[in-house]
Amino acid sequence: MNGEIITIGDELTSGRTLDLNSWYAAGRLIALGLRVTRITSVGDDYEMVSEALTKAIDASRFVIITGGLGCTDDDMTNEIVAKALKRPLSLNKPMFEQIKSHAEARQIDLTPSIEKMAWIPEGSRMLNPEGTSCGFSLIEKDTRLYFLPGMPDQMRHLIDKYVLPEILSLYKTLPIMKQRVLKLYGLDEPGIAEILKELKGKTGDIIFGFYPHFPENHITISLWGKNDPGFTKELIRVEKEIRHLVGSYIFATDNQTMEEVVGQMLKVKNMTLSVAESCTGGLIGHKLTNVPGSSKYFSGGVVVYSNQSKVDLLQVSPETLENHGAVSDKTVREMASGVKKHINTDLGLAVTGIAGPDGGTKKKPVGTVHVGLAAGDNIFSRKYRFWGTREHVKLNSAMMALDSVRRYLNGDPFLPGI
Amino acid sequence: MNGEIITIGDELTSGRTLDLNSWYAAGRLIALGLRVTRITSVGDDYEMVSEALTKAIDASRFVIITGGLGCTDDDMTNEIVAKALKRPLSLNKPMFEQIKSHAEARQIDLTPSIEKMAWIPEGSRMLNPEGTSCGFSLIEKDTRLYFLPGMPDQMRHLIDKYVLPEILSLYKTLPIMKQRVLKLYGLDEPGIAEILKELKGKTGDIIFGFYPHFPENHITISLWGKNDPGFTKELIRVEKEIRHLVGSYIFATDNQTMEEVVGQMLKVKNMTLSVAESCTGGLIGHKLTNVPGSSKYFSGGVVVYSNQSKVDLLQVSPETLENHGAVSDKTVREMASGVKKHINTDLGLAVTGIAGPDGGTKKKPVGTVHVGLAAGDNIFSRKYRFWGTREHVKLNSAMMALDSVRRYLNGDPFLPGI
Repeated sequence: MNGEIITIGDELTSGRTLDLNSWYAAGRLIALGLRVTRITSVGDDYEMVSEALTKAIDASRFVIITGGLGCTDDDMTNEIVAKALKRPLSLNKPMFEQIKSHAEARQIDLTPSIEKMAWIPEGSRMLNPEGTSCGFSLIEKDTRLYFLPGMPDQMRHLIDKYVLPEILSLYKTLPIMKQRVLKLYGLDEPGIAEILKELKGKTGDIIFGFYPHFPENHITISLWGKNDPGFTKELIRVEKEIRHLVGSYIFATDNQTMEEVVGQMLKVKNMTLSVAESCTGGLIGHKLTNVPGSSKYFSGGVVVYSNQSKVDLLQVSPETLENHGAVSDKTVREMASGVKKHINTDLGLAVTGIAGPDGGTKKKPVGTVHVGLAAGDNIFSRKYRFWGTREHVKLNSAMMALDSVRRYLNGDPFLPGI
Repeated sequence: MNGEIITIGDELTSGRTLDLNSWYAAGRLIALGLRVTRITSVGDDYEMVSEALTKAIDASRFVIITGGLGCTDDDMTNEIVAKALKRPLSLNKPMFEQIKSHAEARQIDLTPSIEKMAWIPEGSRMLNPEGTSCGFSLIEKDTRLYFLPGMPDQMRHLIDKYVLPEILSLYKTLPIMKQRVLKLYGLDEPGIAEILKELKGKTGDIIFGFYPHFPENHITISLWGKNDPGFTKELIRVEKEIRHLVGSYIFATDNQTMEEVVGQMLKVKNMTLSVAESCTGGLIGHKLTNVPGSSKYFSGGVVVYSNQSKVDLLQVSPETLENHGAVSDKTVREMASGVKKHINTDLGLAVTGIAGPDGGTKKKPVGTVHVGLAAGDNIFSRKYRFWGTREHVKLNSAMMALDSVRRYLNGDPFLPGI
């Protein structure tokens, strides 16, 4: 059952705004066994919107359209649709009431520009009678059109609560797509290409995908079919084959993140973690605390951006800094044991490095990063070299640090350093 | 001079990957005075790619196509183009040599799947003879087609170095678009809509745009015309009018970020900053250290996620925590002065709050956040209430904290708390 997505707005065709809406809609549709054949972004322009809409109505069974439903002057979707489909605008009473009560609750005057949101093309049905955000749907030549606001939160709410259930109810006998995402860290593209080659011929109807998500690499294994146990079994079999080949590089599956995996492991083992960050500047703590409930195992950390703060906050010895430098094996080890001791946790994780673009030398070029982990009476450390921008180096450093905790807790060897 | 962008890949139509390429390309094109009328994403599918390509060739003067040039099996752009435009694939010698030497440098075997990248449609021209990433261009019915790899880094490099200069050299007499982005924090959409209304009729041919970028709101003022002084003057005049209306809410312009603005101000005033983070977990430090050279003014920080760490690392008094709680005005003030004293900086910034989804109470619901700033002998603090997910609360907290530093250094009043 094919569908399309059209996103409307000058902010999209001018590159001002990332199109998060089509990305979200496509992901949700595919997960439910529906296919998206095309995503089109056009500006707030009658000709382009009109053409995209007409083509989509001819080619697809459903079309999701986002954007241009708001109250500013460049929100013209309603008018464009009215003209393109020859359905004059009329005031939708329930929608008007909803907008009115929402405005009153927020103490906003009901100006004409707010009221205009309730004028929708003839034959349209309001999507969410009880909510506060506006959207509507209509049927044109057997194709269902869903018009949703461009604000990501509102759009997501409407698509999950109204649009997807309705589409699914129309196509009950859909074959479904099962997909499993394996997330890898530390194995590069050619390495992964080799693995996929190795699997060729042994994997039946499985469709493989490879997607770099810096600094992660994702492999997807997908299968179309009916929802029966054999179907799931086949996916599990292939996942096992891949795990057999790349074992410890897979740090998570599906929507899990590295920080969730590490957090889960710490929780299960009833252990606590503290972090001493230099070049990552707080990114590791930020990632760890993105996980709800992380206060159970993450006690805190220090961001020691200057040499003095390394001495003051972590008791790194001034001699170490003097003789070995802030970016050195000895410093990262003292940082790791210092933070572990000072915050009194089971594990102390430390990172120091040169994120760039300046500060590199011949002996210690930009991208040189040391990761240290203090655990019990042991301290482990590795030196790595990362490439790319400052942002890339920070991301890789944080990821490598967290991956080291994961590998330690798993009993796997650390990724080899340089 | 109209152009289009086509991005190819199942990962796009399935919502696995965000389409950063069309976003980047559109932004660069518009900045140079070119217009993008449509962005189309299609899967690795002959029919869809072929249709999108044919339509774009008919409608546009140039088309930028990304994706599907790599070495895995789902990279089929070359073959699809060959078939659709009836230009059989042939081995491009220089491209082959480049791929070969790149593979040798990385000690990768030159397999057939790597070699296939050098087989491009007849009449194509290799884009970057000296580089390592592959791309090619061809002219079809007077329309320039540029085929670029889907890897964002490679794509960006090729578009900046080869594609944009070539397109610009073809259309010398282009009218240009001047655009100014004003970034606001702390003023909501209806508030901004009012301002834009106020300006109506006073702003000639200026095109206004309003774009929420959570937690920021952006206003764009744009003008098409010739590149003469009067033209720039007009933009400056309108910007002045807006500044007159919303003064201190504008924290940055164009591509500047809050952390760059704050960093620049600290540098000019020769002041240093330290940060004590609770609910933001390191996000403020991460943002500050995204700016190259931030070690000049950012000395470090502490992430005090547990009560004990607030006492140990910042000497927050246990009585304060006991009587007022970790999320309280008194605690944030002690955190701010503690971090300022401990790291020995001119300013000490602190945040404590409840990011959710759990941990809220009736008196202190999720989203309750205190921001404190210690400066000299003064300590300032405010209590705010944010909405949304854990991520939203963290982002708003970090932004509000940095905005407080900006307002303090500017001599502007803090945003009113609750």
